[in-house]
Amino acid sequence: MNISDKVINRLTLYHCILTDFIEKNIEYISSKQIAGLLHMDDSQVRKDLNLLNNSGKSRIGYIVKELKISIEKTLGFKKTKKALIVGAGNLGTAIANYGNFTDYGLQILAIFDNDKEKIGKVINGIKIQNIETLKQSVKKGEADIAILTVPAKFAQSTADYLIESGIKYIWNFAPKVLSVPDDVQVWNENLMGNFLQFTCNI
Amino acid sequence: MNISDKVINRLTLYHCILTDFIEKNIEYISSKQIAGLLHMDDSQVRKDLNLLNNSGKSRIGYIVKELKISIEKTLGFKKTKKALIVGAGNLGTAIANYGNFTDYGLQILAIFDNDKEKIGKVINGIKIQNIETLKQSVKKGEADIAILTVPAKFAQSTADYLIESGIKYIWNFAPKVLSVPDDVQVWNENLMGNFLQFTCNI
Repeated sequence: MNISDKVINRLTLYHCILTDFIEKNIEYISSKQIAGLLHMDDSQVRKDLNLLNNSGKSRIGYIVKELKISIEKTLGFKKTKKALIVGAGNLGTAIANYGNFTDYGLQILAIFDNDKEKIGKVINGIKIQNIETLKQSVKKGEADIAILTVPAKFAQSTADYLIESGIKYIWNFAPKVLSVPDDVQVWNENLMGNFLQFTCNI
Repeated sequence: MNISDKVINRLTLYHCILTDFIEKNIEYISSKQIAGLLHMDDSQVRKDLNLLNNSGKSRIGYIVKELKISIEKTLGFKKTKKALIVGAGNLGTAIANYGNFTDYGLQILAIFDNDKEKIGKVINGIKIQNIETLKQSVKKGEADIAILTVPAKFAQSTADYLIESGIKYIWNFAPKVLSVPDDVQVWNENLMGNFLQFTCNI
């Protein structure tokens, strides 16, 4: 199924709400409740949820647990993707600690850095390894996604090294446009672009 | 001017490229060069740049410095927005260190936390202050945007406190849908949604 970026974004937010409801032992949820929490239109929520292959709808609302599973199936949470974090600074550490990535099918196997002070430490159960061993890790087929969290000035040289090591997908958190060959995909986590989207009307 | 989110996103990436070119003392840039770096279609770049009120186009390409200024004018970088970071953990620290926010019109005035060990420390020139003093800061009209970087489990209670203190806009980095009154706007930095958008086709 081809789902637009905006719908994917909203479905993950609905999923977040459903997780909260399950924690609170609430069995049913209405499209109005979801719409209310996100300050959006009820009809939009219903339209999004109609895209799912979801049968758990009753007179008193959607069955929370079933709706959650439907979103997971649609967005492919079960198809686990394995990634390596490159850069064990604050941002890399924050992402390693982010917590609920695993629920969404993202498994972080290791964190790499070149700082000897950091190598060997463990963040949220994930070990910081010497960046020089990254190539072996990729060769073993452990992961081909790198989450790049080094400072902007090291982003290109680190990306070059990642690509040389066999990385095919880079989720780039550095505010830097990377130059990469055609067979490598870069996803820019463009924080400043997001901020401007949010604030352009205030 | 009404510019779509996708265009804003791309314009900030072009801006990033132009900043690099200026550092390298390159005077001209073509839409092809930009398209090449972002692995996108040349005609899309031209279409986006045509939205700008940009006159710096010559036979050999766009004048880098003028194009950069045109993007800044269009996206309102000069209209500085002031924000407070709430949560001086790894994520808050990473954002305080992110560096180039100021270039894009986002000024971070202070970081707030409740951890006595952290209060008084300085990150990238920004002082960590006691969260109890946040209300005064908002009252003085210093900022009404909060960048929320606390762990998910404290996100709602912290948001409640921010709203009580007069914050009107929350840029929420916690993977948690916040319940807020109608006059408060929440921008969810939905990292997992972004990841799923990127990876849905791999």
